[in-house]
Amino acid sequence: MQSTKIRLYDLAGAENNRRFSPNCWRVRLALLHKGLPFETVPWRFTEKETIAFSGQGKVPVIVDREQVVYDSWAIAQYLEENYPKYPSLFGGEVGKSLSRFTTDWVEAVLNPEILRLIITDIYSHLHEKDKDYFRQTREKAFGATLEVISADREQRVVTFRNSLTPMRRTLQHQSFLAGQTPAWADYVVFGSFQWARSVSPFPLLVGDDPIFSWRERMLDTFDGDARKVLAYE
Amino acid sequence: MQSTKIRLYDLAGAENNRRFSPNCWRVRLALLHKGLPFETVPWRFTEKETIAFSGQGKVPVIVDREQVVYDSWAIAQYLEENYPKYPSLFGGEVGKSLSRFTTDWVEAVLNPEILRLIITDIYSHLHEKDKDYFRQTREKAFGATLEVISADREQRVVTFRNSLTPMRRTLQHQSFLAGQTPAWADYVVFGSFQWARSVSPFPLLVGDDPIFSWRERMLDTFDGDARKVLAYE
Repeated sequence: MQSTKIRLYDLAGAENNRRFSPNCWRVRLALLHKGLPFETVPWRFTEKETIAFSGQGKVPVIVDREQVVYDSWAIAQYLEENYPKYPSLFGGEVGKSLSRFTTDWVEAVLNPEILRLIITDIYSHLHEKDKDYFRQTREKAFGATLEVISADREQRVVTFRNSLTPMRRTLQHQSFLAGQTPAWADYVVFGSFQWARSVSPFPLLVGDDPIFSWRERMLDTFDGDARKVLAYE
Repeated sequence: MQSTKIRLYDLAGAENNRRFSPNCWRVRLALLHKGLPFETVPWRFTEKETIAFSGQGKVPVIVDREQVVYDSWAIAQYLEENYPKYPSLFGGEVGKSLSRFTTDWVEAVLNPEILRLIITDIYSHLHEKDKDYFRQTREKAFGATLEVISADREQRVVTFRNSLTPMRRTLQHQSFLAGQTPAWADYVVFGSFQWARSVSPFPLLVGDDPIFSWRERMLDTFDGDARKVLAYE
C-alpha cells in the first residue's frame, strides 16, 4: 500500500458532504474498488482557480503525488495502468472496451435524461455562490428555464425507465453489470443514480425494478460508502 | 483441431444461400472466431420437425458430436467453455458479463426497430413455404399488416440511427466494440445489420457514420465471409 493519499476534487452542494457529481462518484468508487487511500476535497462549480493547475475547469480531478489526471475515463485508465496489482476495474482488454461502451450508453442515454428530471433539485441544493452560474449556463444550453426543462418529469420518467430495459434484462442473468461483483461499468451507472439521490426526492426507479435492487446492492458496497453522504432515499 | 464438423442449422430465405437470421449470424461468426470446422444447414421457419431433436422450434441450433445446443447466448457460452484454448469470445468474466449487456442492448433497442424497418423485405425473400406462416405470426404479434408496420420507415430510421449513439461514440475510441479486434459483442451487433442487408436494400446507415465503417470492417473479417452470401450492399 502506498502511504500518500490520492486527492480527489469532488463537486459539492451547499453542504460539504453533499456530493452530487456522477463523474466524481465513478472515480470515488473506483478508488474504493482499488483499495487506494484517498481524500476528497469539496469543490464548487465557480472555484475554477482551485483546479487551474489541471489545465481545465471541471471535476473530477485527481492528484496522485506528482500526477494530475482529469476526466473520469482517463482517471479510470490511469488507475488501472498504474495500479495493476490492485483489483481490476475492467477485467482485461475486452472488459475495458465494453466498459467504454457502457460508459457511452450512460452518457448518451441516461445522463441527459436524468439531468432534465432533477435539474431544479440540483439548483435547490447548490452552494449559494454556484446558483447564478448554474442557472445561466444550463438555461443557455437548453434554451429554457430550469423550471420549464423539468416541468413534464412525471411523463418523462416513464420513458426514462423504458430506456433502462437493456440493463434490466442483464440483471436478470447476473448480480452486477460486470458479473458477480461490481466494477467500472457498475460504478458509471451507479454514479448517475447517486447524482440523482444526492439532490432529489423524485423517484427514478420503482421498488420492484431489478435495477432498484441492484442500486441497493451498490449502496451497500464498500461498507455503505454511498449511504454516508447527504442524500434522499 | 477437432475432425468432426459442428453443424449449424441456419435460417434461409427462398435461396439456400440467403441467410438472414441475426441470431444465426452471431453463431456463425463465433464459430469462425473460434476457428472451429463447421457446416451450415439451410433451414426454414416451417421445418419444425427438422430440429425437433433440440426440444424446441427455433434456430440457431448447433450439433457438436453428441451435444445439441440452441439459443445464441447459450451456444456462445458452450463454445467458450468447451473450447477454452481457442480464441476467446468474451475475454474473461467481466468481458462476458458486459457482452451480455451489449446483447441485451441489441435485443431491446436495435432488433425490434430493425424488424419494423425491413419486415416487408423479409417477407419478399422468404421461401414460398414460409410466407403464410411469417405473415400470420407477425401480423398477429403486431396487430397490423406487414405493410402497415413498415409504412413509416423513412421517419423511423432517423430515430433508429439516433438510438445507435452510444456505439457511435465508442467507435471514436476503438476499432471494435470489443477493442482492437472483434469478439462476441461485435458479432451480436453485426448479426443485426447482416440480417437487414441479407433481405433489404433499405439503408439503415449513412456512409459517413462511424458505424458504417465498422460494418465494412466486420464484412471484411474472416476473409469476407459475410460478403459471400446473397445480400444487398
